[in-house]
Amino acid sequence: MAVYTEVSDEEVEAFAHAYGLGEVTGLKGIAEGVENSNYLLVTAEGQYILTLYEKRVNPKDLPFFIGVMDHLAGRGVPCPVPLKRPDGEALGRLAGRPAAIITFLKGLWPRKIRPEHCAELGAALARMHLAGLDFPMTRPNDLGREGWRPLLDKSADGAEGVMPDLAAALYRELDFLEANWPSGLPRGLIHADLFPDNVFFQHDRLTGLIDFYFACTDDFAYDLAVCLNAWCFESDHSFNVTKARLLLRNYTAERAVSRHELAALPILARGAALRFLLTRLYDWIHTPEGAFVRKKDPLEYWKKLRFHQGVSGPGAYGLEA
Amino acid sequence: MAVYTEVSDEEVEAFAHAYGLGEVTGLKGIAEGVENSNYLLVTAEGQYILTLYEKRVNPKDLPFFIGVMDHLAGRGVPCPVPLKRPDGEALGRLAGRPAAIITFLKGLWPRKIRPEHCAELGAALARMHLAGLDFPMTRPNDLGREGWRPLLDKSADGAEGVMPDLAAALYRELDFLEANWPSGLPRGLIHADLFPDNVFFQHDRLTGLIDFYFACTDDFAYDLAVCLNAWCFESDHSFNVTKARLLLRNYTAERAVSRHELAALPILARGAALRFLLTRLYDWIHTPEGAFVRKKDPLEYWKKLRFHQGVSGPGAYGLEA
Repeated sequence: MAVYTEVSDEEVEAFAHAYGLGEVTGLKGIAEGVENSNYLLVTAEGQYILTLYEKRVNPKDLPFFIGVMDHLAGRGVPCPVPLKRPDGEALGRLAGRPAAIITFLKGLWPRKIRPEHCAELGAALARMHLAGLDFPMTRPNDLGREGWRPLLDKSADGAEGVMPDLAAALYRELDFLEANWPSGLPRGLIHADLFPDNVFFQHDRLTGLIDFYFACTDDFAYDLAVCLNAWCFESDHSFNVTKARLLLRNYTAERAVSRHELAALPILARGAALRFLLTRLYDWIHTPEGAFVRKKDPLEYWKKLRFHQGVSGPGAYGLEA
Repeated sequence: MAVYTEVSDEEVEAFAHAYGLGEVTGLKGIAEGVENSNYLLVTAEGQYILTLYEKRVNPKDLPFFIGVMDHLAGRGVPCPVPLKRPDGEALGRLAGRPAAIITFLKGLWPRKIRPEHCAELGAALARMHLAGLDFPMTRPNDLGREGWRPLLDKSADGAEGVMPDLAAALYRELDFLEANWPSGLPRGLIHADLFPDNVFFQHDRLTGLIDFYFACTDDFAYDLAVCLNAWCFESDHSFNVTKARLLLRNYTAERAVSRHELAALPILARGAALRFLLTRLYDWIHTPEGAFVRKKDPLEYWKKLRFHQGVSGPGAYGLEA
C-alpha cells in the first residue's frame, strides 16, 4: 500500500492548478508501490498520478528521477511524463513533501506472466537502454554490488531466524561475487527494478514502463539479469527457459550485445538475486510488527539464487551457443 | 489498504465486457476501504470502481447493498450506481469472488472537516433517509445494540492490555444502554458508517455518498449519532458544537424530527461511540501482528463515549431548547 501522507482538497487543488490543471474531480490513494504515496488525480483534463516522495527517497535524487522520465519519454519510451509548471520545474512541495504530477499510462500490469510478455519486455528494455545513451545525468546504484555487504552486515544477526545458516551462505556468495564480478561491461541508464508491476500491457503489447525510482547508472546486462529473476521463474520457483529465451532474444534483436555481456549473465543474475534477497531480508527483519507494509518473502530469492549458482553458462537462459 | 484479490487482465476484460464496457485501459488497486478489494477501472467509456467482495462480507447481504445503491441513485441521492449486465444482474463473479462495477463519483473526501461539510452532510443524510422510505428490502443492523455484548465478550480478556479496567467500564456502559435504549423511534434505511472518507465534496458542496456495505434497517437518529461521533470531534478529542449544530439543523430542515428522537440523541451517541469502540477493540486485539491492515485506535472512541456520558440533554449538541 502506498499512502503515507494525506493531502487536503485545498492543497491538491492549489498544487494541480500550478501545473496548469483545472478542477480536481477525484483523488484516490493507490495501493501499489511501497516507497512513496501515490494518488490517482482526476481533473477536467484527464487522469494523472500524483506522487508525494516519502522518507526512503533521497530528495537529492529527485531531479535525476524526473530527468530520466523526461528524457526517455522524449525519446519515445512509453513512460510517464512529469508535468511542468510555467517556471519549468516538475518538482513541487505538497503537504510538506516533495511532490510531482506525472501522466497516467494506459495498460495493466500482468498478474500472470506469459511468454509474450517477456518477448515484449526484452525489446522495450533494449530500446530504453538505447534511449538513455545520451542522458546526461548519472547516479550510482545504491543497491549495486558495493551496497550488498553493508546491507548483509545489518541483517546477518536476524538471518538465522529466517533460515538456518542463511547468513553464512550469503557471506560466501558475497565473497564469490566480489571476487568474480565482471568489469568493463557496457553501462548507462538502467531501470534496476523492472518487475511485472512496473510494466503495463494491453492485449499483450507493452504500453508502459513505470516507477523509475531505482533508476541509476550501471551495466545494461544487470538490468537484464534483474528481469530474468523477476519474470522468468514460475510460482513453484522453477525456471521457465522459454520466457528467458524470448526476453533475451528480443533484447539482443534491438541492442547489439557482446559475447562478454552474455557470458556475464549467470553471475549478474546471481548478483541481482542477492540484491533482492538482501533488501527483502532487511525489510523482513527490520520492519516493525504491525507496520503497514506487506513484507515480501526473502527466501523466494534464495531459491532463485540457488538456481543461478547451478548454471554453467548463458545457455541455461535459452541462448544458443 | 484494500486489495486482497489480484485479478488478471483477461479476467477483468471479460468481466467488464459482460457489463457492456469497452476496452479496459487501466486498473489500479485503491488504498481505501478495508473490507473489500477495490480497483479503479478505466475503460474507453470512463472511470468505474470494481469491487471484489471479500470474506468479511456475507454474500447473502450483497443483493441488499446493490439494491440500496440502485434505489437511492434512482431517487437522486448522489451515490454510486451499480452497472447491470443485459440479464439485469449487477452482481457477478471475478477471480472466485462476488464482484460488481459501480460508477465513479466526482469529489474528494475531506481530510480536514470544516463546519460547511457538516452542514452539507446533515441535509444529505436527511434526504438519504427520505429517499429510502420506499425501499422494499430490510437488513438487521449486525453491529446494532444486540451485537455489542457478544462483541465485547470476545474482546474482554484483551481489553485490559489496551487500558486498565476498560472491560469493566464497557460492561457497565452496555448494561446502561441495554436498560435505557430508546424504542419506537422512526426507522428505515440507514448508512450506519458515514465517516468522512465515505463522503465526497467539491468546493464545499457534497457530491457523493459511498460505501453502503454497513447499510441496514435501524433508527434514523442512530445514523445522526454516528455522524456526530465521526464528524464533530476535533483531533484533540474536543467536541465542536458548531459542527454538531450545523449537522443537526440542516438535517432537521430536511426531515421533520420528533422531540422523542432529539431527546434520544445523547444515548444514541453513546451507543454509536460504543459500537465503533467495540469493533476497533476487537480488531486491535485479534488482528495478527504484521497483518496488512492499519489498526484504528479504540481509545479515540472511549474518549468520545466519555463525552456523551457527560451530556445532560440534546442541547449539548447545539440544539436550541
